[in-house]
Amino acid sequence: GMPERKGSDKDAEGMQTLLVKLGYKVAMGNNLSAAQMKDVLQRWAARDHSTCDSFVCVLLSHGEQGKIFGTDTDVDIEELLGLFRGNRCASLAGKPKLFFIQACRGTNFDEAVDNDEVDAKTRQTLPSEADFLIAYSVVPGYYSWRNSTNGSWFMQAVIDIFTKYYKQLDLITMLTIVNNSVATVESSTSDPRFNNKKQIPSCVNMLRKLVYF
Amino acid sequence: GMPERKGSDKDAEGMQTLLVKLGYKVAMGNNLSAAQMKDVLQRWAARDHSTCDSFVCVLLSHGEQGKIFGTDTDVDIEELLGLFRGNRCASLAGKPKLFFIQACRGTNFDEAVDNDEVDAKTRQTLPSEADFLIAYSVVPGYYSWRNSTNGSWFMQAVIDIFTKYYKQLDLITMLTIVNNSVATVESSTSDPRFNNKKQIPSCVNMLRKLVYF
Repeated sequence: GMPERKGSDKDAEGMQTLLVKLGYKVAMGNNLSAAQMKDVLQRWAARDHSTCDSFVCVLLSHGEQGKIFGTDTDVDIEELLGLFRGNRCASLAGKPKLFFIQACRGTNFDEAVDNDEVDAKTRQTLPSEADFLIAYSVVPGYYSWRNSTNGSWFMQAVIDIFTKYYKQLDLITMLTIVNNSVATVESSTSDPRFNNKKQIPSCVNMLRKLVYF
Repeated sequence: GMPERKGSDKDAEGMQTLLVKLGYKVAMGNNLSAAQMKDVLQRWAARDHSTCDSFVCVLLSHGEQGKIFGTDTDVDIEELLGLFRGNRCASLAGKPKLFFIQACRGTNFDEAVDNDEVDAKTRQTLPSEADFLIAYSVVPGYYSWRNSTNGSWFMQAVIDIFTKYYKQLDLITMLTIVNNSVATVESSTSDPRFNNKKQIPSCVNMLRKLVYF
Protein backbone atom coordinates (compact mmCIF):
# COMPACT_ATOMS: atom_id res chain seq x y z
CA GLY A 1 0.00 0.00 0.00
CA MET A 2 2.98 2.34 -0.08
CA PRO A 3 3.95 4.50 -3.06
CA GLU A 4 6.90 3.80 -5.35
CA ARG A 5 10.04 5.50 -4.00
CA LYS A 6 10.73 7.68 -7.01
CA GLY A 7 14.26 9.08 -7.11
CA SER A 8 15.64 6.13 -5.11
CA ASP A 9 17.41 4.85 -8.25
CA LYS A 10 19.47 8.07 -8.18
CA ASP A 11 20.53 7.30 -4.61
CA ALA A 12 21.40 3.70 -5.50
CA GLU A 13 23.41 4.65 -8.59
CA GLY A 14 25.23 7.45 -6.78
CA MET A 15 26.14 5.25 -3.82
CA GLN A 16 27.34 2.46 -6.10
CA THR A 17 29.66 4.89 -7.93
CA LEU A 18 30.90 6.36 -4.63
CA LEU A 19 31.52 2.98 -2.98
CA VAL A 20 33.45 1.67 -5.99
CA LYS A 21 35.57 4.84 -5.84
CA LEU A 22 36.21 4.19 -2.13
CA GLY A 23 37.50 0.72 -3.01
CA TYR A 24 34.52 -1.43 -2.09
CA LYS A 25 33.13 -4.39 -4.03
CA VAL A 26 29.42 -3.62 -4.41
CA ALA A 27 26.46 -5.99 -4.61
CA MET A 28 22.99 -4.55 -5.10
CA GLY A 29 19.55 -6.00 -4.39
CA ASN A 30 16.38 -4.34 -5.67
CA ASN A 31 12.80 -4.67 -4.45
CA LEU A 32 13.53 -7.43 -1.94
CA SER A 33 10.90 -8.87 0.34
CA ALA A 34 11.50 -8.70 4.10
CA ALA A 35 12.61 -12.35 4.10
CA GLN A 36 14.96 -11.71 1.18
CA MET A 37 16.53 -8.71 2.95
CA LYS A 38 17.21 -10.84 6.03
CA ASP A 39 18.49 -13.69 3.88
CA VAL A 40 20.88 -11.51 1.87
CA LEU A 41 22.34 -9.91 4.99
CA GLN A 42 22.55 -13.25 6.79
CA ARG A 43 24.62 -14.56 3.91
CA TRP A 44 26.90 -11.49 3.97
CA ALA A 45 27.36 -11.91 7.73
CA ALA A 46 28.24 -15.58 7.24
CA ARG A 47 30.97 -14.83 4.68
CA ASP A 48 34.65 -14.76 5.46
CA HIS A 49 35.65 -11.08 5.54
CA SER A 50 39.18 -11.74 6.78
CA THR A 51 40.78 -10.09 3.75
CA CYS A 52 38.49 -7.03 4.01
CA ASP A 53 39.04 -3.89 6.08
CA SER A 54 35.42 -2.90 6.58
CA PHE A 55 31.81 -3.54 5.61
CA VAL A 56 29.19 -1.09 4.31
CA CYS A 57 25.44 -1.68 4.03
CA VAL A 58 23.12 0.88 2.42
CA LEU A 59 19.37 0.50 2.99
CA LEU A 60 17.00 2.59 0.84
CA SER A 61 13.35 1.95 1.58
CA HIS A 62 10.21 2.98 3.38
CA GLY A 63 10.52 2.78 7.14
CA GLU A 64 9.19 3.69 10.51
CA GLN A 65 10.76 3.93 13.97
CA GLY A 66 13.14 0.94 14.29
CA LYS A 67 11.83 -0.72 11.14
CA ILE A 68 12.62 -0.87 7.45
CA PHE A 69 10.25 -2.26 4.84
CA GLY A 70 10.69 -5.02 2.30
CA THR A 71 8.20 -5.21 -0.56
CA ASP A 72 5.78 -7.22 1.62
CA THR A 73 6.35 -6.40 5.29
CA ASP A 74 8.80 -4.77 7.68
CA VAL A 75 12.06 -5.93 9.28
CA ASP A 76 13.49 -4.89 12.61
CA ILE A 77 16.62 -2.79 11.91
CA GLU A 78 18.27 -4.04 15.13
CA GLU A 79 17.81 -7.59 13.88
CA LEU A 80 19.67 -6.80 10.63
CA LEU A 81 22.49 -4.95 12.41
CA GLY A 82 22.76 -7.68 15.04
CA LEU A 83 23.83 -10.19 12.37
CA PHE A 84 27.17 -8.35 12.15
CA ARG A 85 27.95 -8.16 15.87
CA GLY A 86 31.47 -9.23 16.82
CA ASN A 87 30.22 -12.44 18.42
CA ARG A 88 28.20 -13.43 15.33
CA CYS A 89 30.49 -12.31 12.52
CA ALA A 90 34.03 -12.97 13.73
CA SER A 91 35.82 -11.96 10.53
CA LEU A 92 34.47 -8.40 10.89
CA ALA A 93 35.21 -8.13 14.64
CA GLY A 94 37.29 -5.03 15.33
CA LYS A 95 36.58 -3.64 11.84
CA PRO A 96 34.24 -0.76 10.93
CA LYS A 97 30.70 -1.87 10.09
CA LEU A 98 28.97 1.10 8.46
CA PHE A 99 25.23 1.36 7.83
CA PHE A 100 23.58 4.13 5.82
CA ILE A 101 19.82 4.07 6.25
CA GLN A 102 17.61 6.24 4.04
CA ALA A 103 14.08 5.65 5.34
CA CYS A 104 11.39 7.39 7.33
CA ARG A 105 11.51 6.90 11.11
CA GLY A 106 8.03 8.27 11.75
CA THR A 107 5.63 10.83 10.37
CA ASN A 108 6.68 14.00 12.19
CA PHE A 109 7.84 16.95 10.14
CA ASP A 110 10.68 19.09 11.41
CA GLU A 111 9.61 22.73 11.57
CA ALA A 112 12.03 25.39 10.37
CA VAL A 113 13.69 27.49 13.04
CA ASP A 114 15.39 30.82 12.35
CA ASN A 115 19.15 30.76 12.34
CA ASP A 116 20.59 33.79 14.11
CA GLU A 117 24.07 33.13 12.73
CA VAL A 118 23.25 34.53 9.31
CA ASP A 119 21.96 38.03 8.78
CA ALA A 120 18.25 38.50 8.37
CA LYS A 121 18.48 39.43 4.66
CA THR A 122 19.55 35.97 3.54
CA ARG A 123 16.91 34.18 5.57
CA GLN A 124 18.15 30.72 6.37
CA THR A 125 16.40 28.24 8.62
CA LEU A 126 17.51 25.28 10.70
CA PRO A 127 15.78 22.02 11.62
CA SER A 128 14.58 22.22 15.22
CA GLU A 129 16.26 18.87 16.01
CA ALA A 130 19.71 20.00 14.77
CA ASP A 131 22.83 20.68 16.85
CA PHE A 132 22.27 17.98 19.46
CA LEU A 133 24.86 15.47 20.51
CA ILE A 134 23.92 12.70 22.92
CA ALA A 135 26.83 10.74 24.34
CA TYR A 136 25.28 7.60 25.85
CA SER A 137 27.52 5.53 28.09
CA VAL A 138 26.34 2.32 26.39
CA VAL A 139 24.40 1.04 23.38
CA PRO A 140 20.61 0.51 23.73
CA GLY A 141 19.54 -2.53 25.75
CA TYR A 142 22.72 -2.89 27.77
CA TYR A 143 23.95 -2.53 31.32
CA SER A 144 26.32 0.41 31.95
CA TRP A 145 29.27 -0.36 34.22
CA ARG A 146 30.30 1.67 37.23
CA ASN A 147 33.10 1.02 39.70
CA SER A 148 31.94 1.74 43.24
CA THR A 149 35.26 3.36 44.14
CA ASN A 150 36.48 5.00 40.94
CA GLY A 151 33.27 5.96 39.12
CA SER A 152 31.77 4.72 35.86
CA TRP A 153 33.84 3.37 32.98
CA PHE A 154 32.33 5.89 30.57
CA MET A 155 32.41 9.13 32.57
CA GLN A 156 35.93 8.43 33.80
CA ALA A 157 37.08 7.91 30.20
CA VAL A 158 35.36 11.18 29.16
CA ILE A 159 37.09 13.04 31.99
CA ASP A 160 40.54 11.57 31.26
CA ILE A 161 40.45 11.90 27.49
CA PHE A 162 38.82 15.34 27.31
CA THR A 163 41.28 16.67 29.92
CA LYS A 164 44.15 15.32 27.81
CA TYR A 165 43.01 16.39 24.33
CA TYR A 166 40.49 19.26 24.56
CA LYS A 167 42.98 21.82 23.29
CA GLN A 168 43.80 19.85 20.12
CA LEU A 169 40.90 17.60 19.13
CA ASP A 170 37.23 18.16 18.33
CA LEU A 171 34.40 16.65 20.40
CA ILE A 172 33.41 13.67 18.20
CA THR A 173 37.04 12.67 17.71
CA MET A 174 37.52 12.71 21.50
CA LEU A 175 34.33 10.63 21.93
CA THR A 176 35.67 8.07 19.44
CA ILE A 177 38.81 7.81 21.60
CA VAL A 178 36.48 7.40 24.61
CA ASN A 179 34.80 4.49 22.78
CA ASN A 180 38.21 2.90 22.27
CA SER A 181 39.16 3.41 25.90
CA VAL A 182 35.92 1.96 27.32
CA ALA A 183 36.19 -0.97 24.87
CA THR A 184 39.46 -2.06 26.48
CA VAL A 185 37.89 -2.46 29.94
CA GLU A 186 36.60 -5.87 31.04
CA SER A 187 34.62 -6.51 34.21
CA SER A 188 36.24 -8.59 36.90
CA THR A 189 34.05 -9.93 39.70
CA SER A 190 33.84 -13.10 41.71
CA ASP A 191 30.32 -13.74 40.39
CA PRO A 192 30.75 -15.53 37.03
CA ARG A 193 27.43 -14.08 35.75
CA PHE A 194 28.97 -10.59 35.77
CA ASN A 195 32.58 -11.47 35.04
CA ASN A 196 34.48 -10.71 31.79
CA LYS A 197 31.78 -8.39 30.44
CA LYS A 198 32.39 -5.47 28.09
CA GLN A 199 30.81 -2.13 27.21
CA ILE A 200 30.77 0.18 24.20
CA PRO A 201 29.38 3.74 24.38
CA SER A 202 27.04 5.09 21.71
CA CYS A 203 27.29 8.65 20.49
CA VAL A 204 24.32 10.10 18.60
CA ASN A 205 25.40 13.08 16.49
CA MET A 206 23.08 15.72 15.04
CA LEU A 207 25.77 18.43 15.09
CA ARG A 208 26.34 20.45 11.92
CA LYS A 209 29.90 21.45 12.69
CA LEU A 210 32.92 20.18 14.54
CA VAL A 211 32.94 21.39 18.13
CA TYR A 212 36.23 22.58 19.62
CA PHE A 213 36.19 23.63 23.26
CA GLY B 1 14.19 -0.16 45.37
CA MET B 2 17.41 0.50 43.51
CA PRO B 3 20.85 0.49 45.13
CA GLU B 4 22.89 3.61 45.85
CA ARG B 5 25.07 4.46 42.84
CA LYS B 6 28.42 4.23 44.61
CA GLY B 7 31.25 5.92 42.73
CA SER B 8 28.87 8.38 41.05
CA ASP B 9 30.29 11.21 43.19
CA LYS B 10 33.64 10.59 41.46
CA ASP B 11 31.94 11.08 38.07
CA ALA B 12 30.19 14.24 39.22
CA GLU B 13 33.33 15.76 40.73
CA GLY B 14 35.43 14.89 37.70
CA MET B 15 32.90 16.31 35.23
CA GLN B 16 32.56 19.49 37.26
CA THR B 17 36.34 20.01 37.19
CA LEU B 18 36.47 19.23 33.46
CA LEU B 19 33.57 21.51 32.51
CA VAL B 20 35.00 24.44 34.48
CA LYS B 21 38.30 23.87 32.65
CA LEU B 22 36.41 23.93 29.32
CA GLY B 23 34.94 27.32 30.26
CA TYR B 24 31.43 26.32 31.37
CA LYS B 25 29.52 27.66 34.33
CA VAL B 26 28.38 24.57 36.22
CA ALA B 27 25.25 24.00 38.30
CA MET B 28 24.78 20.64 40.02
CA GLY B 29 21.67 18.92 41.33
CA ASN B 30 21.87 15.85 43.55
CA ASN B 31 19.26 13.18 44.27
CA LEU B 32 16.46 14.94 42.41
CA SER B 33 13.01 13.45 41.99
CA ALA B 34 11.70 12.93 38.45
CA ALA B 35 9.61 16.10 38.74
CA GLN B 36 12.60 18.05 40.01
CA MET B 37 14.76 16.84 37.09
CA LYS B 38 12.12 18.02 34.63
CA ASP B 39 11.69 21.27 36.50
CA VAL B 40 15.42 22.06 36.63
CA LEU B 41 15.86 21.38 32.91
CA GLN B 42 12.70 23.29 32.02
CA ARG B 43 14.14 26.29 33.82
CA TRP B 44 17.48 25.94 32.01
CA ALA B 45 15.67 25.72 28.67
CA ALA B 46 13.66 28.86 29.51
CA ARG B 47 16.79 30.91 30.26
CA ASP B 48 18.32 33.37 27.85
CA HIS B 49 21.45 31.69 26.47
CA SER B 50 22.18 34.39 23.91
CA THR B 51 25.59 35.19 25.40
CA CYS B 52 26.55 31.47 25.56
CA ASP B 53 28.15 29.36 22.83
CA SER B 54 26.81 25.96 23.85
CA PHE B 55 24.98 23.98 26.52
CA VAL B 56 26.05 20.79 28.30
CA CYS B 57 23.87 18.50 30.41
CA VAL B 58 25.31 15.52 32.28
CA LEU B 59 22.88 12.93 33.66
CA LEU B 60 24.21 10.34 36.12
CA SER B 61 21.56 7.92 37.33
CA HIS B 62 19.90 4.56 37.05
CA GLY B 63 18.16 4.06 33.72
CA GLU B 64 16.57 1.74 31.26
CA GLN B 65 15.90 1.94 27.51
CA GLY B 66 14.80 5.54 26.80
CA LYS B 67 14.40 6.39 30.48
CA ILE B 68 16.42 7.89 33.31
CA PHE B 69 15.42 7.64 36.96
CA GLY B 70 14.82 10.33 39.55
CA THR B 71 14.73 9.30 43.20
CA ASP B 72 11.07 8.34 42.91
CA THR B 73 10.24 7.40 39.32
CA ASP B 74 11.54 7.59 35.76
CA VAL B 75 11.59 10.35 33.14
CA ASP B 76 11.51 9.96 29.37
CA ILE B 77 14.94 11.03 28.05
CA GLU B 78 13.37 12.32 24.80
CA GLU B 79 11.13 14.58 26.88
CA LEU B 80 14.15 16.12 28.62
CA LEU B 81 16.09 16.59 25.37
CA GLY B 82 13.01 17.98 23.61
CA LEU B 83 12.97 20.98 25.95
CA PHE B 84 16.09 22.27 24.17
CA ARG B 85 14.89 21.87 20.57
CA GLY B 86 15.43 24.92 18.37
CA ASN B 87 11.72 25.71 18.31
CA ARG B 88 11.44 25.58 22.11
CA CYS B 89 14.72 27.16 23.19
CA ALA B 90 15.45 29.88 20.66
CA SER B 91 18.58 31.25 22.32
CA LEU B 92 20.32 27.88 21.85
CA ALA B 93 19.14 27.39 18.24
CA GLY B 94 22.14 26.76 15.99
CA LYS B 95 24.41 26.11 18.97
CA PRO B 96 25.75 22.76 20.20
CA LYS B 97 23.55 21.09 22.81
CA LEU B 98 25.60 18.29 24.36
CA PHE B 99 24.21 15.54 26.59
CA PHE B 100 26.32 13.00 28.45
CA ILE B 101 24.19 10.19 29.86
CA GLN B 102 25.67 7.69 32.28
CA ALA B 103 22.86 5.20 32.94
CA CYS B 104 21.87 1.66 32.12
CA ARG B 105 19.81 1.21 28.95
CA GLY B 106 18.74 -2.35 29.70
CA THR B 107 20.05 -5.44 31.43
CA ASN B 108 22.04 -7.14 28.67
CA PHE B 109 25.72 -7.76 29.20
CA ASP B 110 28.10 -7.35 26.31
CA GLU B 111 30.14 -10.52 25.86
CA ALA B 112 33.85 -10.22 25.15
CA VAL B 113 34.96 -10.98 21.60
CA ASP B 114 38.55 -11.76 20.68
CA ASN B 115 40.42 -8.99 18.94
CA ASP B 116 42.54 -10.31 16.11
CA GLU B 117 44.46 -7.06 15.78
CA VAL B 118 46.66 -7.80 18.75
CA ASP B 119 48.77 -10.90 19.03
CA ALA B 120 47.43 -13.81 21.00
CA LYS B 121 49.97 -13.44 23.81
CA THR B 122 48.55 -10.16 25.07
CA ARG B 123 44.94 -11.33 24.98
CA GLN B 124 42.69 -8.32 24.48
CA THR B 125 38.95 -8.49 23.96
CA LEU B 126 36.37 -6.22 22.34
CA PRO B 127 32.70 -5.59 23.08
CA SER B 128 30.55 -7.40 20.51
CA GLU B 129 28.60 -4.18 19.82
CA ALA B 130 31.73 -2.14 19.01
CA ASP B 131 32.83 -0.79 15.63
CA PHE B 132 29.36 -0.04 14.26
CA LEU B 133 28.35 3.25 12.72
CA ILE B 134 24.73 3.79 11.71
CA ALA B 135 24.12 6.87 9.58
CA TYR B 136 20.35 7.44 9.75
CA SER B 137 18.92 9.92 7.26
CA VAL B 138 16.79 11.51 9.97
CA VAL B 139 16.29 11.61 13.74
CA PRO B 140 13.84 9.12 15.34
CA GLY B 141 10.15 9.84 14.81
CA TYR B 142 10.52 11.94 11.66
CA TYR B 143 9.76 11.80 7.98
CA SER B 144 12.79 11.48 5.66
CA TRP B 145 12.67 13.63 2.52
CA ARG B 146 13.24 12.37 -1.02
CA ASN B 147 13.03 14.29 -4.26
CA SER B 148 11.33 12.18 -6.91
CA THR B 149 13.76 13.33 -9.61
CA ASN B 150 17.06 13.89 -7.81
CA GLY B 151 16.96 11.34 -4.99
CA SER B 152 16.85 11.79 -1.22
CA TRP B 153 18.26 14.81 0.59
CA PHE B 154 20.45 12.61 2.79
CA MET B 155 21.90 10.12 0.30
CA GLN B 156 22.61 12.85 -2.23
CA ALA B 157 24.49 14.85 0.43
CA VAL B 158 26.48 11.72 1.39
CA ILE B 159 27.37 11.13 -2.26
CA ASP B 160 28.40 14.76 -2.91
CA ILE B 161 30.35 15.33 0.27
CA PHE B 162 32.10 11.95 0.39
CA THR B 163 33.09 12.30 -3.28
CA LYS B 164 34.56 15.73 -2.51
CA TYR B 165 36.38 14.98 0.76
CA TYR B 166 37.08 11.25 1.09
CA LYS B 167 40.79 11.66 0.44
CA GLN B 168 41.23 14.27 3.20
CA LEU B 169 38.61 13.84 5.93
CA ASP B 170 37.54 11.00 8.19
CA LEU B 171 34.08 9.44 8.10
CA ILE B 172 32.43 11.14 11.11
CA THR B 173 33.75 14.54 10.07
CA MET B 174 32.25 14.02 6.59
CA LEU B 175 28.94 12.95 8.17
CA THR B 176 28.91 16.15 10.25
CA ILE B 177 29.29 18.11 7.00
CA VAL B 178 26.41 16.00 5.60
CA ASN B 179 24.31 17.09 8.62
CA ASN B 180 25.11 20.71 7.82
CA SER B 181 24.26 20.25 4.16
CA VAL B 182 20.91 18.51 4.79
CA ALA B 183 20.08 21.16 7.43
CA THR B 184 20.17 23.88 4.75
CA VAL B 185 17.46 22.21 2.64
CA GLU B 186 13.83 23.24 3.08
CA SER B 187 10.88 21.49 1.44
CA SER B 188 8.94 23.41 -1.16
CA THR B 189 5.56 22.05 -2.21
CA SER B 190 2.19 23.51 -3.12
CA ASP B 191 0.59 21.64 -0.20
CA PRO B 192 1.07 23.86 2.88
CA ARG B 193 1.05 20.81 5.18
CA PHE B 194 4.34 19.67 3.66
CA ASN B 195 5.87 23.04 2.80
CA ASN B 196 8.91 24.66 4.51
CA LYS B 197 9.85 21.50 6.39
CA LYS B 198 13.37 20.59 7.45
CA GLN B 199 15.41 17.46 8.19
CA ILE B 200 18.48 16.62 10.26
CA PRO B 201 20.28 13.27 9.95
CA SER B 202 21.33 11.28 13.02
CA CYS B 203 24.63 9.43 13.14
CA VAL B 204 25.08 6.75 15.81
CA ASN B 205 28.75 6.09 16.44
CA MET B 206 30.18 3.01 18.16
CA LEU B 207 33.49 3.22 16.26
CA ARG B 208 36.72 3.01 18.26
CA LYS B 209 38.89 4.79 15.70
CA LEU B 210 38.60 7.39 13.01
CA VAL B 211 37.83 5.81 9.63
CA TYR B 212 39.68 7.10 6.59
CA PHE B 213 38.71 5.58 3.25
